[in-house]
Amino acid sequence: MATATPAATSTVDLGPAAALSCRECGTRFPLGPSFACLECFGPLEIAYDYSDHGAAELRARIEAGPASIWRYAPLLPVPADVATKPNLNPGWTPLVEADRLGKELGFTARLHVKDDSGNPTHSFKDRVVACAIEAARAFDFTTLSCSSTGNLAGAVGAAAARAGLRSCVFIPHDLEHAKIVMAAVYGGDLVGIEGNYDDVNRFCSELIGDPAGEGWGFVNVNLRPYYGEGSKTLAFEICEQLGWRLPEQIVIPIASGSQLTKIDKGLRELIELGLVEDRPYRIFGAQATGCSPVAEAFKAGRDVIRPVKPDTIAKSLAIGNPADGPYVLDIARRTGGAVEDVTDAEVVEAIRLLARTEGIFAETAGGVTIGVLKKLVESGQLDPDKETVAINTGDGLKTLDAAAGAGLTAVIRPSLESFRAAGLV
Amino acid sequence: MATATPAATSTVDLGPAAALSCRECGTRFPLGPSFACLECFGPLEIAYDYSDHGAAELRARIEAGPASIWRYAPLLPVPADVATKPNLNPGWTPLVEADRLGKELGFTARLHVKDDSGNPTHSFKDRVVACAIEAARAFDFTTLSCSSTGNLAGAVGAAAARAGLRSCVFIPHDLEHAKIVMAAVYGGDLVGIEGNYDDVNRFCSELIGDPAGEGWGFVNVNLRPYYGEGSKTLAFEICEQLGWRLPEQIVIPIASGSQLTKIDKGLRELIELGLVEDRPYRIFGAQATGCSPVAEAFKAGRDVIRPVKPDTIAKSLAIGNPADGPYVLDIARRTGGAVEDVTDAEVVEAIRLLARTEGIFAETAGGVTIGVLKKLVESGQLDPDKETVAINTGDGLKTLDAAAGAGLTAVIRPSLESFRAAGLV
Repeated sequence: MATATPAATSTVDLGPAAALSCRECGTRFPLGPSFACLECFGPLEIAYDYSDHGAAELRARIEAGPASIWRYAPLLPVPADVATKPNLNPGWTPLVEADRLGKELGFTARLHVKDDSGNPTHSFKDRVVACAIEAARAFDFTTLSCSSTGNLAGAVGAAAARAGLRSCVFIPHDLEHAKIVMAAVYGGDLVGIEGNYDDVNRFCSELIGDPAGEGWGFVNVNLRPYYGEGSKTLAFEICEQLGWRLPEQIVIPIASGSQLTKIDKGLRELIELGLVEDRPYRIFGAQATGCSPVAEAFKAGRDVIRPVKPDTIAKSLAIGNPADGPYVLDIARRTGGAVEDVTDAEVVEAIRLLARTEGIFAETAGGVTIGVLKKLVESGQLDPDKETVAINTGDGLKTLDAAAGAGLTAVIRPSLESFRAAGLV
Repeated sequence: MATATPAATSTVDLGPAAALSCRECGTRFPLGPSFACLECFGPLEIAYDYSDHGAAELRARIEAGPASIWRYAPLLPVPADVATKPNLNPGWTPLVEADRLGKELGFTARLHVKDDSGNPTHSFKDRVVACAIEAARAFDFTTLSCSSTGNLAGAVGAAAARAGLRSCVFIPHDLEHAKIVMAAVYGGDLVGIEGNYDDVNRFCSELIGDPAGEGWGFVNVNLRPYYGEGSKTLAFEICEQLGWRLPEQIVIPIASGSQLTKIDKGLRELIELGLVEDRPYRIFGAQATGCSPVAEAFKAGRDVIRPVKPDTIAKSLAIGNPADGPYVLDIARRTGGAVEDVTDAEVVEAIRLLARTEGIFAETAGGVTIGVLKKLVESGQLDPDKETVAINTGDGLKTLDAAAGAGLTAVIRPSLESFRAAGLV
């Protein structure tokens, strides 16, 4: 299933990206706007042909690079001069030493929170969209598009605006007004579809095969192999920020499962390139109980994901039939990790726990991750004596309702007497 | 007017900070939690005693420092090991080459937007609070406090949480629910005062002089001299990001006027230290018409600011009697700049202009700055042939209502036929 408009690929400069390769059967295809194997319909990934520089040289080159994901340009499907093009320059977000949270959860080893809310549109989506834009430019696409329920719509709108590309984003027409404003403010076209997210997705697939979609790059469909590689930069940054060292345990939220599988891919690439020492690491996946098909399969020892109808406040993780679910199961089992889930009440509690201990206000997906971290420690599945990283993928300002229980401690008159009576001193 | 609880100051380690010095009469006082001159009631500033290293050595030390305001620790009232303490590590935000915005406004020289929405709580307040926290630690304060109408409350709550300090923040009790949530989520005490912002401020001043306020550091009152220095880091970063060069023109929003005066102070310090070449620069101030006492005085050629009752959507700039207003007038006149204002409608238009051209979603204060930038160019007050920097101090997610006019381009059924009928291709 190649797309309707494969560009000429021999002249494409996407840095070290050499070909597309099927994750299932290994068949290789030239670089182009394709996402599924023509032989077996498996998902396509980027295959690289790295320049022959040693690990020391590569490391020095990265460390001298910009404070964004483009410091890893030699390891991404982007041209070498990517940092000079107009783009949002996402990434290089803080790895926070979460000592106070760690203490509260009983850690004796160091706990870190990789806080991706510092990205330009305040979610990790800026990383993947930035990579997709380079592919869109390489394939001469003039319109950037996606189906979305929120974070991705804003990330695409903002990135297209900076790059000077047209954008046309498709969302369910009945999204909350605030989310529509966040996505519409960048001035691209924002089209509401009368239907749910599945209907939006189906429509986008139709549009890709139609002349009306010619010249359109759908970041999460026909540009998906390039887009997905952006998530690897989370792995790269975590290891570099630890001093070029693998963490022992990582907790990652699961929507489609793509981020978790790409972080694992990124860690393995760093090992292969000699940038970090090879040693065991364990990967844990986090879901909301109201949309936990991967956690269910993991706990039941199944290899097959049974799709569910999502019902959770963690909307950005609410994918009932996650495409990369089976790969997530493989990785969790291979690395000695686990997949766990928490209720919406636990998500809210975790958002406030992280805010109270570390001053980080996470969106619901971050609450899922921290809630699962807590549950994994309590159940003995994750070892608090090993160095651990938990990923906060987005910002609490985007899911303000989840924190709506936080309010005033007291209301007083503007007098010392009234203040003393409130019992705060 | 020293505060009720001056700590022993001889043992205080605040790096290069040597004393407090009156901005009006020059009288010096030992470092302590004081903010007004005992001789003339003028505002106190930090006086420095820089170590005797040359410019080249200082520059190398800064460039080797962390990607936060702490790279400038040798130029701030903070201990040398500040970066190792738990804090939000704000700053080192992007200086965006705003070519598309510049083109639309008729610039032939380079236009940059210093985008401070990338800070941990998404406003420049994280810079000033981070400096205030170091002073609070030095003076053994155990509670961090402030009066606020929004951004500052969240910045103080988050910073105190990370640092493990108690916080108690005072706000008008009838603030919008969303702002209360943003401030309350960090788990500190949040006290609503029955009254307006002026009542809140008056109450805080009373509390500082009362035993109930003992051990309390009010970031914008008794820690104000330390707090204010944080704004200098905007000047430092802009110059370093330009390759250790002064910009020719800077546009800065005005609330109390402190940020503008401190940026000017920062630029002059860089010149004195030999870190940038001395050459003329022009500083422009930006206000909303509904709260424009400084712009009014500037236009009328007056030295005295006449207080106003604010009425504008730019709430974070709505200070009707700005303490540093007279200094702002001095700086604008001395540097050949100006102070201009724009209506709320122009603010909204400017927010959407910046989002559409650069993918930056600014809060209303950023809309004021960009709106004023546009007006200054159109009126010939600012030269589009000179390199210019405009500062976006905060994030659009915090003032979502101002962008509420942005909406769906079209609503369609999930079919190609319906899409074609919408006329978007």
